[in-house]
Amino acid sequence: MSDGRVINFGAGPSALPASVLEEAAKGLLNFNGTGIGIAEISHRSKEFTAFLAEVESLIRSQLDVPETHSILFTQGGGSAQFSAVVLNLLARHHLLNPDLPERDLDYVVTGSWSKKAAEEARRLGGGRVNVVVDARASSKDGRTFDSIPAHASYSFTSPNPALIYYCENETVDGVEFSNDASSPASFPFHLLPQNTPLLPLVGDYSSSFMSRPIPRLADHAIIYAGAQKNIGPAGLTILIVRKDCLVDVDAAAKLGAAPVPLTMAYKTLADNSSVYNTPAVLPIYISGLVLRRSAEQGGVQYYEALNKRKADKLYAAIKEGEARGVFRAKVKEGSGSLMNVVFDVVGDGAEAKFISGAEALGMKAIKGHRSVGGIRVSLYNAVTEEQTDVIVAFMKSFLAQ
Amino acid sequence: MSDGRVINFGAGPSALPASVLEEAAKGLLNFNGTGIGIAEISHRSKEFTAFLAEVESLIRSQLDVPETHSILFTQGGGSAQFSAVVLNLLARHHLLNPDLPERDLDYVVTGSWSKKAAEEARRLGGGRVNVVVDARASSKDGRTFDSIPAHASYSFTSPNPALIYYCENETVDGVEFSNDASSPASFPFHLLPQNTPLLPLVGDYSSSFMSRPIPRLADHAIIYAGAQKNIGPAGLTILIVRKDCLVDVDAAAKLGAAPVPLTMAYKTLADNSSVYNTPAVLPIYISGLVLRRSAEQGGVQYYEALNKRKADKLYAAIKEGEARGVFRAKVKEGSGSLMNVVFDVVGDGAEAKFISGAEALGMKAIKGHRSVGGIRVSLYNAVTEEQTDVIVAFMKSFLAQ
Repeated sequence: MSDGRVINFGAGPSALPASVLEEAAKGLLNFNGTGIGIAEISHRSKEFTAFLAEVESLIRSQLDVPETHSILFTQGGGSAQFSAVVLNLLARHHLLNPDLPERDLDYVVTGSWSKKAAEEARRLGGGRVNVVVDARASSKDGRTFDSIPAHASYSFTSPNPALIYYCENETVDGVEFSNDASSPASFPFHLLPQNTPLLPLVGDYSSSFMSRPIPRLADHAIIYAGAQKNIGPAGLTILIVRKDCLVDVDAAAKLGAAPVPLTMAYKTLADNSSVYNTPAVLPIYISGLVLRRSAEQGGVQYYEALNKRKADKLYAAIKEGEARGVFRAKVKEGSGSLMNVVFDVVGDGAEAKFISGAEALGMKAIKGHRSVGGIRVSLYNAVTEEQTDVIVAFMKSFLAQ
Repeated sequence: MSDGRVINFGAGPSALPASVLEEAAKGLLNFNGTGIGIAEISHRSKEFTAFLAEVESLIRSQLDVPETHSILFTQGGGSAQFSAVVLNLLARHHLLNPDLPERDLDYVVTGSWSKKAAEEARRLGGGRVNVVVDARASSKDGRTFDSIPAHASYSFTSPNPALIYYCENETVDGVEFSNDASSPASFPFHLLPQNTPLLPLVGDYSSSFMSRPIPRLADHAIIYAGAQKNIGPAGLTILIVRKDCLVDVDAAAKLGAAPVPLTMAYKTLADNSSVYNTPAVLPIYISGLVLRRSAEQGGVQYYEALNKRKADKLYAAIKEGEARGVFRAKVKEGSGSLMNVVFDVVGDGAEAKFISGAEALGMKAIKGHRSVGGIRVSLYNAVTEEQTDVIVAFMKSFLAQ
């Protein structure tokens, strides 16, 4: 059944393991021997309830999520969470600090997605949006996002912020925080306000979720991720929410917080085990199959090592190409994403030649995001080391020409 | 591949045609000969863009949607639309009537879902929620939703409402508006305020969408439907929005309207052809396959006749059982849904016996909604007349015992 498949380096929706898709194809007709397909079964059936609990536990065990945090499933992707995190955490802030004249929303801006998230907070109002750091300030040209800023450039000065927001991996720009605390490109957890034990720290992990362990997960208020990168089809969003952030949004509205649409209220989701309303059953199913396979292979530790090897090979090939004036890295060394590797092919018509050459060899979806151009090779979990070797070999043969 | 499948009378997620699921199983591995599975392909790829346009045109042609209305695709199900219709139409109302001291939101309450929708409007605030009619007032016991109210009981008295809301088919309670204008159970279009050419009429068509034509579709501001009844997997919501309702929600917020989360703003969706952010690609795909098949079979006219025949057989069997004191209809004659047929089995332990008897013959998911109990047999498009005959035969044999 998996004949004729190409190598998919797309940035999302993106490659899934063929073995999982073959299993899912069977589940479409008959889920777990119920005689009913997975897209047809009630989200309240005992079979799906058990499956959903298994998906939660696969995430909890692989990421080591403590009992202080709930794992929730919702819809709407990262963009819906741009709004939801603000609305829920402003509601929490109103409950904790009813009479504050001004509320701070602190954003770490390292790329297109965290920039968009900050813009949504501005649109929604209800607080003052502060940019803790803008990575463009330290970029080569002052306009692009090409690196994780040095720790010294962050200013976490709000005394009592309603949220502190960052995006671990910027899919468009190809920059990612290092998860090695000793790296200068790590997230500066040590600089965060120290006076609050329950910091309102929000991490967008959409494009790195399940690709490696999450540093200091327990210190986060909210971690969220769209499924369509490392773990499943588009249409599913996974949330890890510290329980003090499951607040009564209606009580907060009485204190002046903005009302929160029902499906965006984390407490409603949590109180109903993520089935307040019909969830995205089929995307959850396929994500569950991917997570099972991931656990069998050794979990996020296995993928961390694999993803590091894959990306290292690609960055080495870019470096080789830079030395010969053929490729140009778009991101400063040390800040490069393990998930989305971006570079330019230098010279008139060279990029088109590179793309068509790769396509002729069965490698697809390597065009950079329309806002930044160039080449983007995404190396999510389902992209194998062998497939990575194919593009690296192609890059080397391209250099040799 | 479709061996071992049972008859699925579930209320949603619900039965899909086996032939579609078999085709979808292939698309999971390789969509349209791209060498990439449908859950893995970019939502901006030319292949998916073309497919999405086809889905739109399949809906437009079968429901005869005029060019005055946009067809949009989003996530979050009906529950998210409970909020979105209020937020978007209040924004529109602010733009049209900037200085009004009070805004009216008029709800026709005929069952659990329209009641929930009205509750969400109350939660969100920003307007006065008026119940135009509450069907419980004319029910047998004054507490349940068992009929579509008589036209004389509606009071559309708001002079300039921001929205007028109804739900065509109440999945939980099994009542549905007739789409025959001469029926006393039809929606009273003729009673709506006559002073406004662009009425803010909102119809929740979640569980009847594509089961038959939509009466006076062009007179609606918004029609919405979750996919998981007649056309596809859960995780996709379809919207038909009259273009004057695609409003600049940020301009409205400056006039005092509540801010609208980005992914809930209809204009953002429309301006970006439903791919502002990643849509539910896989649910859209399966829905598209179902809609293709529906067009081949004769569209909503075909299903209207088929669904009428199926429901008539079931209601006749209930009537027969009522005469013998074995069954009891839960809904008054004339108000019964063609999609969700609900009844009680009279006597101690009789309901359990009925359910286990049906299950033994391969009929599943006939238990009524947990809030109302009894039996619910859902007869969505994918349930065949032959499958309906199987349960009717079982009902008759149950009577004979």
